[in-house]
Amino acid sequence: MKAKLTVIKVGGKIVEEETSLQKLLNDFAAIDGPKVLVHGGGRSATKMASQLGIESKMVNGRRITDADMLRVVTMVYGGLVNKNIVAGLQARGINAVGLTGADMNVILSDIRPVKDIDYGFVGDVKQVDGERLATLIQSGIIPVMAPLTHDGKGNILNTNADTIAGETAKGLAPYFDVTLIYCFEKKGVLSDEADDNSVIANINRQQFTELVEQGVIQGGMIPKLENAFQAIDAGVKEVIITAANAIDGRQGTKIR
Amino acid sequence: MKAKLTVIKVGGKIVEEETSLQKLLNDFAAIDGPKVLVHGGGRSATKMASQLGIESKMVNGRRITDADMLRVVTMVYGGLVNKNIVAGLQARGINAVGLTGADMNVILSDIRPVKDIDYGFVGDVKQVDGERLATLIQSGIIPVMAPLTHDGKGNILNTNADTIAGETAKGLAPYFDVTLIYCFEKKGVLSDEADDNSVIANINRQQFTELVEQGVIQGGMIPKLENAFQAIDAGVKEVIITAANAIDGRQGTKIR
Repeated sequence: MKAKLTVIKVGGKIVEEETSLQKLLNDFAAIDGPKVLVHGGGRSATKMASQLGIESKMVNGRRITDADMLRVVTMVYGGLVNKNIVAGLQARGINAVGLTGADMNVILSDIRPVKDIDYGFVGDVKQVDGERLATLIQSGIIPVMAPLTHDGKGNILNTNADTIAGETAKGLAPYFDVTLIYCFEKKGVLSDEADDNSVIANINRQQFTELVEQGVIQGGMIPKLENAFQAIDAGVKEVIITAANAIDGRQGTKIR
Repeated sequence: MKAKLTVIKVGGKIVEEETSLQKLLNDFAAIDGPKVLVHGGGRSATKMASQLGIESKMVNGRRITDADMLRVVTMVYGGLVNKNIVAGLQARGINAVGLTGADMNVILSDIRPVKDIDYGFVGDVKQVDGERLATLIQSGIIPVMAPLTHDGKGNILNTNADTIAGETAKGLAPYFDVTLIYCFEKKGVLSDEADDNSVIANINRQQFTELVEQGVIQGGMIPKLENAFQAIDAGVKEVIITAANAIDGRQGTKIR
């Protein structure tokens, strides 16, 4: 029987404000067993870029990452946000290590091909070294992953944190019973957008298809759930979509 | 018999200019056996601080690190400089991992006590987890260490890169035959300050004491050599002070 492991992805806002960060670190420290934290940092990157006179350009919610912006996200995600989380976890007795995909070559990406849009130094994940990560975790280390990968040719690449979390969960699935928890601003997948408490407790692929056809699930939730089902198909045991203040996974929407 | 390990400390300038960085990475990749790279980044931090309107204050060559400056060095050392080196080494087939002292709790520091000067968030190294580092290195990983440590209470601390290198070398001495190489702007310890080629090939403590008394060795070289002898006393096999373009340790001044 494989040991249970929890991969938690938290968005930018929660790790960028001191109060919510401290609560997150407490909550994360309280989770039993091996675990991985994947963080964003987009707001901090945008703010830092602005202070440096660099304009943030977003297309379809994704950041255009030219050479100047790459320097900013490398600093902010890989340095500022990541190292503060690691130090905060160490203070709570959690032996964390901050990783980008370049570190120990844990996540290798391809630079995104230019079609209609040139996203610049943005990576699409090609390969996760699940064995290396599993060995590290089994030695008592808790990875804290920044949304950065590398191309194996010397370039750091900006990479979506949801994708990092999903691919990491998949990469670890041969070694652990993985629960993947996506935290976001809502309490879960809602049956009524206007009612924050209308959380759908469980959802399978058939129900998902039906709910999309009925127009109940729409917009940005569709790719989130597609990713979730893809993770399940790749061996992840359970995916939970929940609020950032509920990372224990007891609430929210369970996808199996 | 213990395996040989090389700890190389390179200063700011060499890792901050693209051409010299590429040469350094080639040279570092070419070194046989397990190795550790410790880097600075002071010039980049000063430049970034200046771009953000933060003034750099130095006292006795050490940076005063207030909360704003701590953010800058955390970003620049832990993110920008460190991750670019790691990605560059991965491109050369070296399985590097970027570490601050907070990562895996490898270097714990005390915040420097305020005497005449309040250095702010500056750490004096208290403890190196040599066993953790040795295990990592024995698994084929090459640590790339940023000049940052932590206090175990959630704070990242700015820490002198020479000190990081020395303490890391000492911490690894029980597990490896460690050669510690300090790279700087001269070819080694000079017998004539005016003659760049007057490198003293070998020096022991008695010779050092004599050369200091004779006024041959003076200024900033004295603490550098004090550190070197301290490392030797703590079990490091050999310390070499050499130029940044000679990191193979075949030139420069050998301290035994």
